[in-house]
Amino acid sequence: MSEGEPRRSIATVCLSGTLEDKLAAAAVAGFDGVEIFENDLVASANSPVEIGEYCRDLGLSVDLYQPFRDFEAVPPAQLADNLRRAERKFDVMEQLGTDLVLVCSTVSPTAVDDDELAAEQLRALAERAAARGMRVAYEALAWGRFVNTYEHSWRIVRRADHPALGVCLDSFHVLSRDGDPALIRTIPGDKLFYLQLADAPRLDMDVLQWSRHHRLFPGQGSFDLTTFAANALEAGYAGPLSLEVFNDVFRQADPRPAAVDAMRSLRLLEEQLGYPVAEPAPQLSGYAFTEITADVEICPSLTRTLGDLGFAHTGDHHTKPVQRWTNGTTHVLVNTDVSGNGGPESGTAGCGAAIGALAVESADPPRSARRAEAMRSPILARERGPEEAGLASVAAPDGTNVFFCDSGAADGWSSDFRGAGAQPGAGLGITGIDHVSLTQPFDHFDEAALFYRSVLGLEPEEVAEYAAPFGMVRNRGMADAGGSVRIALNGTLVRRGEWAPVVRDPQHIAFACTDVLAAASALAESGAPVLRIPDNYYDDLDARFGLDAALLARLRAHSVLYDRDGHGEFLHVFTELFGDRVFFELVQRIGNYAGYGVGNAPVRMAAHRRNRMTANGR
Amino acid sequence: MSEGEPRRSIATVCLSGTLEDKLAAAAVAGFDGVEIFENDLVASANSPVEIGEYCRDLGLSVDLYQPFRDFEAVPPAQLADNLRRAERKFDVMEQLGTDLVLVCSTVSPTAVDDDELAAEQLRALAERAAARGMRVAYEALAWGRFVNTYEHSWRIVRRADHPALGVCLDSFHVLSRDGDPALIRTIPGDKLFYLQLADAPRLDMDVLQWSRHHRLFPGQGSFDLTTFAANALEAGYAGPLSLEVFNDVFRQADPRPAAVDAMRSLRLLEEQLGYPVAEPAPQLSGYAFTEITADVEICPSLTRTLGDLGFAHTGDHHTKPVQRWTNGTTHVLVNTDVSGNGGPESGTAGCGAAIGALAVESADPPRSARRAEAMRSPILARERGPEEAGLASVAAPDGTNVFFCDSGAADGWSSDFRGAGAQPGAGLGITGIDHVSLTQPFDHFDEAALFYRSVLGLEPEEVAEYAAPFGMVRNRGMADAGGSVRIALNGTLVRRGEWAPVVRDPQHIAFACTDVLAAASALAESGAPVLRIPDNYYDDLDARFGLDAALLARLRAHSVLYDRDGHGEFLHVFTELFGDRVFFELVQRIGNYAGYGVGNAPVRMAAHRRNRMTANGR
Repeated sequence: MSEGEPRRSIATVCLSGTLEDKLAAAAVAGFDGVEIFENDLVASANSPVEIGEYCRDLGLSVDLYQPFRDFEAVPPAQLADNLRRAERKFDVMEQLGTDLVLVCSTVSPTAVDDDELAAEQLRALAERAAARGMRVAYEALAWGRFVNTYEHSWRIVRRADHPALGVCLDSFHVLSRDGDPALIRTIPGDKLFYLQLADAPRLDMDVLQWSRHHRLFPGQGSFDLTTFAANALEAGYAGPLSLEVFNDVFRQADPRPAAVDAMRSLRLLEEQLGYPVAEPAPQLSGYAFTEITADVEICPSLTRTLGDLGFAHTGDHHTKPVQRWTNGTTHVLVNTDVSGNGGPESGTAGCGAAIGALAVESADPPRSARRAEAMRSPILARERGPEEAGLASVAAPDGTNVFFCDSGAADGWSSDFRGAGAQPGAGLGITGIDHVSLTQPFDHFDEAALFYRSVLGLEPEEVAEYAAPFGMVRNRGMADAGGSVRIALNGTLVRRGEWAPVVRDPQHIAFACTDVLAAASALAESGAPVLRIPDNYYDDLDARFGLDAALLARLRAHSVLYDRDGHGEFLHVFTELFGDRVFFELVQRIGNYAGYGVGNAPVRMAAHRRNRMTANGR
Repeated sequence: MSEGEPRRSIATVCLSGTLEDKLAAAAVAGFDGVEIFENDLVASANSPVEIGEYCRDLGLSVDLYQPFRDFEAVPPAQLADNLRRAERKFDVMEQLGTDLVLVCSTVSPTAVDDDELAAEQLRALAERAAARGMRVAYEALAWGRFVNTYEHSWRIVRRADHPALGVCLDSFHVLSRDGDPALIRTIPGDKLFYLQLADAPRLDMDVLQWSRHHRLFPGQGSFDLTTFAANALEAGYAGPLSLEVFNDVFRQADPRPAAVDAMRSLRLLEEQLGYPVAEPAPQLSGYAFTEITADVEICPSLTRTLGDLGFAHTGDHHTKPVQRWTNGTTHVLVNTDVSGNGGPESGTAGCGAAIGALAVESADPPRSARRAEAMRSPILARERGPEEAGLASVAAPDGTNVFFCDSGAADGWSSDFRGAGAQPGAGLGITGIDHVSLTQPFDHFDEAALFYRSVLGLEPEEVAEYAAPFGMVRNRGMADAGGSVRIALNGTLVRRGEWAPVVRDPQHIAFACTDVLAAASALAESGAPVLRIPDNYYDDLDARFGLDAALLARLRAHSVLYDRDGHGEFLHVFTELFGDRVFFELVQRIGNYAGYGVGNAPVRMAAHRRNRMTANGR
């Protein structure tokens, strides 16, 4: 924790593994404290004393113990049992070394709707807690039987009027019910005992199921957590910003990257709250280059196709087996050193080729790198030769390298390349990279969106879902404010099993093109491997849009796909696959079409599968 | 299709793959027809004529083409375009060789709430269809903008009054809204053009999302499809029973077993409707035996522990490397031939041991086998020696062999075993097998429940979900009416990834025991590998239940776990793992406790992981 920054905490329930796994991951990610979830402790072979010591060794405070359920507004006999139960938990807290327990509003069928009784019993609990130097944070569950708004929990706490009793605010419980966070400012800061932060996608479903399965880290969902947290801070809340996220995917994912994702989400939120956690993201102005890592077997067909696309081989890296291919000012690097580039999931292992790196033009590359580091992105160490350009780069969650470039600088990335004699290619109307599409590893979809948002300042669009031939797919476009850098993230709704593994985790570079029909015609003449789209698609297009017959005939003849939305039209054409996952696309946006043609993705996927099966002789 | 049985159809959207994959799977599973989903056809490289021919070659009729959306109640200009669109689809239908199209009630923002107009325009559509020898089935989507009940769709069809216009009834759209299926009987049978069947779990969520992601095959969810379908049949519906199930898991699973699962669901429904599809399930009276397949390295510790549990080695199979171990009348077979037993997912490959077979006592084993075959279960071919018992068996979805036995018969399964000289063991109060717990492969959880329900006649209980250390788990108990055969199915909510692979897909045999505390004490004395449960668990137990101190001390001393529900109490103790997934449990039900102690499962799972990591020296 730096000065001027808040304390950061995370509930163990956010992460997968044993309690010890979770604590270690939280510490490595830089959290200051944890909320210990009872179930995690109960399953541990380490005693509460040992866990408390382990936390302190890791530099973590135990900020909260939770949950304590169904305490208040019960008949007297039940109260005695509940107080006995509480004393046992105070024992555990004492051993852990924490003084704060979370009490959730009751859902018990034996409780009664009586605020006076609830206040009286919570006061009795607070009295017991105070006698042991402890405090009680009372939280309104969104599905609490009688108390399900924070205003109501505060009325009861105020009525109980005990210094050891305050409220816990959980953003999910408030915002899932469209609660007004402005009223938080009416609660005295010293009665705000704890602040739990969780985001979520806006779903129309039972709030308990929504809460238990679909919470997200801040910045990954639809909630306005900035306003929520700002209200608590303005009210004088002085405790940690703590994450409490129940999510089916995070619960089973490696806790180490998940904890980093969590930390990144908090830092982005803090920035929005005005804390000086990072320098602002420099303005972007497009892609400097993209780099494809390819086996030497795949490289020839890949570069031949780049040639078909109007790219020329304009240089070779002076120390590495990397070719530069250029069309106008658009660059694609082809790297045949498949040993080190990218993480294991982005590597070419077994798939022939992969997109190893994206490079964006930054107005201030060193600042971009400092921001990335502040946002907890792994800075990639580079062996830099004496004459090599100082390229700053970080690793995205899927292992893709992200470079920050200033191509205009004298020591820009291009200075590492020695001319191969060729002038930049031209033709086919390619004007740049429209977007790069990357299929994310199942566990990292939401993490990836947050990464590109926090590191590059790209804004995520709505998630679109579609039925692909081998399962449901989701797609989320991200773009900078000027639309100069676009990334399309893709992922499956269910982690892929053994069935239909032919084309796994597709990735592609989509080049912006001024006339896709003309380009597709030229590609056909040059014998380029254009992906063949079946007639059925065009018959359906005709039925749906009633296109001009001549246009439809040209689309059909050249396997160009078509889409239309309220803002414009979209023409696009694909190549076949290079290896098992990489291909190219040419796209033409007419008017203000803002999408990625995802409605056509199932057709493309089926075509790539046929293409692959034919190539493999199956 | 046998005489007296209905025609059976399936929508291609139920299955994963290309259209060709889906059609082949439907045909192999024995369907008579299909509904072709437009998206599947559009992505196919085969023309509608070729697909139609392929269907006929496979013995499948094309019963329906769907969906046609947003047709009715629109302004005149839009109507002209919609009719043009329809004519293009009639072209496709003609080529496919089907005469029926599904029109869904409109969700278009340009449509108006005017039944008269809707009827008039649907009549115009029907007139066009009739001119080409086709018919239109109008369906009320549960989320239709104006028409969202089948009664309403029928009012419009009646008003349109055209012989080529009828209604399509989809059970999901009716039952998700708690519609009353009794009114179906008021619709003339010849106006019921099509019947689509889908089950679903009862979920409190947006009905469109529920429909698109969570439908199930009949018998796998909570809907009363028997009454629904019976009403349509009583009304005179004479078309196929057709499945239309949108499910995220089925959409990405191998379509071949999924189609068999679908067919099994229909046959079970038909039986409930009174069709003579299968002989009734014979009464069960407990487990004859369970069989564990174990590597020779694992076998000694496994059998030594069976000895600790009071089992004696009472025989050896006269031709196979199978030992019989017996305690009283409870038998466990240990098979060291790991080559052939069970399917690939139940095999011991890489995990040391697996439960290879369950054998139940059937009042009529041949009838059980005939029923299993009628329910489309793969009958296992057995190489039967001249002196071997004729054991009928089938394969469960996870590859586990299920045997039907009559142990009292002269040629019962035991006659294959030659005495090893030992008398049956005794002691530890073991009275039988309480249940067998099997973790299902991710794609087959719902299929497994339907398999045991339809083949053995076990009734599924509610699905329970719990948070385990490495992700969410669901558990579904199944039992015969007398409670003599219980199976607990387990599965993860998210398909497991690479993280935490130490104990994968646990399986265990739970023996019923008259006194688990005494048994656990005896096991400790014999040095049996009892799974050590941490103190934290007992401290929490004390807090939760306020148990008698002496009882708590005994539970703690012997690592016995405890649960309580409204009907009784449950004591249970586990062994360590044999290999990577198999272990034993002793359970004692006090009063009418009906559960499986799933609340304790996370503690057990964490303990097994520690146990495993210690054993592996990690």
